[in-house]
Amino acid sequence: MPRYELTYPKEAHNTVKRYNSRGASYALKTIHEIINAAQLLHVSFQPDDSPFPAVLPMLGQMGSFDRPSADTGDVLDLYLHGYVSSRLMNVSRAKTTAADGQETPDGLPITIAASFVDGLVLALSPNAHSYNYRSAVLFGYATVVTDVSEKLYAMECITNSVVPDRWRQTRVPPNNAEMQSTSVLKVRIVSGSAKFRTGNTHDDRCDLDDESVLDSVWAGVLPVYTTLGEPIPSSYNRINPVPAYLEQFRTDYNSNSLETALEAAVEPPEDKKAVDPQDD
Amino acid sequence: MPRYELTYPKEAHNTVKRYNSRGASYALKTIHEIINAAQLLHVSFQPDDSPFPAVLPMLGQMGSFDRPSADTGDVLDLYLHGYVSSRLMNVSRAKTTAADGQETPDGLPITIAASFVDGLVLALSPNAHSYNYRSAVLFGYATVVTDVSEKLYAMECITNSVVPDRWRQTRVPPNNAEMQSTSVLKVRIVSGSAKFRTGNTHDDRCDLDDESVLDSVWAGVLPVYTTLGEPIPSSYNRINPVPAYLEQFRTDYNSNSLETALEAAVEPPEDKKAVDPQDD
Repeated sequence: MPRYELTYPKEAHNTVKRYNSRGASYALKTIHEIINAAQLLHVSFQPDDSPFPAVLPMLGQMGSFDRPSADTGDVLDLYLHGYVSSRLMNVSRAKTTAADGQETPDGLPITIAASFVDGLVLALSPNAHSYNYRSAVLFGYATVVTDVSEKLYAMECITNSVVPDRWRQTRVPPNNAEMQSTSVLKVRIVSGSAKFRTGNTHDDRCDLDDESVLDSVWAGVLPVYTTLGEPIPSSYNRINPVPAYLEQFRTDYNSNSLETALEAAVEPPEDKKAVDPQDD
Repeated sequence: MPRYELTYPKEAHNTVKRYNSRGASYALKTIHEIINAAQLLHVSFQPDDSPFPAVLPMLGQMGSFDRPSADTGDVLDLYLHGYVSSRLMNVSRAKTTAADGQETPDGLPITIAASFVDGLVLALSPNAHSYNYRSAVLFGYATVVTDVSEKLYAMECITNSVVPDRWRQTRVPPNNAEMQSTSVLKVRIVSGSAKFRTGNTHDDRCDLDDESVLDSVWAGVLPVYTTLGEPIPSSYNRINPVPAYLEQFRTDYNSNSLETALEAAVEPPEDKKAVDPQDD
């Protein structure tokens, strides 16, 4: 744990405007935990030849190759997993080499987003409807990892983010063909932010004072959570029963997932409530 | 249903390179269903003053104001719900008015992404690990909806995408203050694509022929699905028990969600299998 809570700087591109009063965070720990918990990240970058940002679903994990014991609240890099043939890898590789063949240190500017819905907030009026959610964005410069040790470190991080300790439980290390067919991007993060909503419904006074509305509309939260189902063995699987580390992961994941959704629906103490119902 | 399956054109920005052989689709119906099923969309656009695309989590739904009975496989617009104060709304509004005050019809180029994870595919080697997933992107030009009837149509669509028929079950119509504080973006879609993976593990021959690997690594799929939990009433809720339409929605949602994850793990017939294991 860092001695002080580290936060990303507030700059034009990461300032969370609507939620400053309650549901925004620039804390590295908060942001990194949302990114690490996400099974898929959306990676956006602006191609030169299109008016539209490209968006790719990718796997990623925060880490520090130089200091592998670093905490989630520390300054970390984001490692993204992809394939040598993919457009992002090509663009990123091109950007690290300028027209004159000189390496430019910056890399490709990319934005990484991850969001979780924790509950459907069903209020008296449609306008007061909302979600309990957690969402994080990170902004940084992506380059292709060329160092073999660092690439292996990132591949292990990412595999273990799918199932804890999975790397050690599989056929490792990757062979030469696998190392060559896999690319890893390292994103040097320059800023980021998170926003979230928790609590139950917040309705406007006009509806809370209206007996006919109160007597006709159900108000409350439907918790939303992700579940890992019963394992489905492959046709060539020989390991029976399912190993303990996998069942433990399922149990932990499912109880944590439900608990997060239920906790999100708990109304925060009065002094932390939103002042402005428009925040919903 | 359209008589012929409509597809988006393949252009540089939406061509799915890695998955052309099996897991890509340009069918409007496939893409629109992924977008409509997503609780949150990630909306990306390139601000003028930053190297990084901005990414915002938003609610959205495909629809046709001119032809409300249109099928999901038809040409549709995407309606996004946001707030007048948000950065996207401001940029989008600015973009519809050129410097000389003339309206430009194009709007703001944005990319919309939605992804679902349906299963963790745990193979013998880390490199053959994968996800069963569905992912869609849409590219289009966003403008602010000014017509009151169209705005109401979009608000109803979006509310009913959270819970079917919810609009009619709440205090409607929105009052003037609500209409003014809410903005709706209409996105004229120009192209899009979807990619997905289904099936169980696909491992390389070298691992499938290795007795020690087969005897030590569990291979198979952990299905992943979203669950709606027990409703948590608001402190001021008076409607007990939970209305039938809400419980029916929960039941339908949860069974559909589990079924989708289980179906995704079923190995496709031989002739539809990926030829190249790298596709994993």
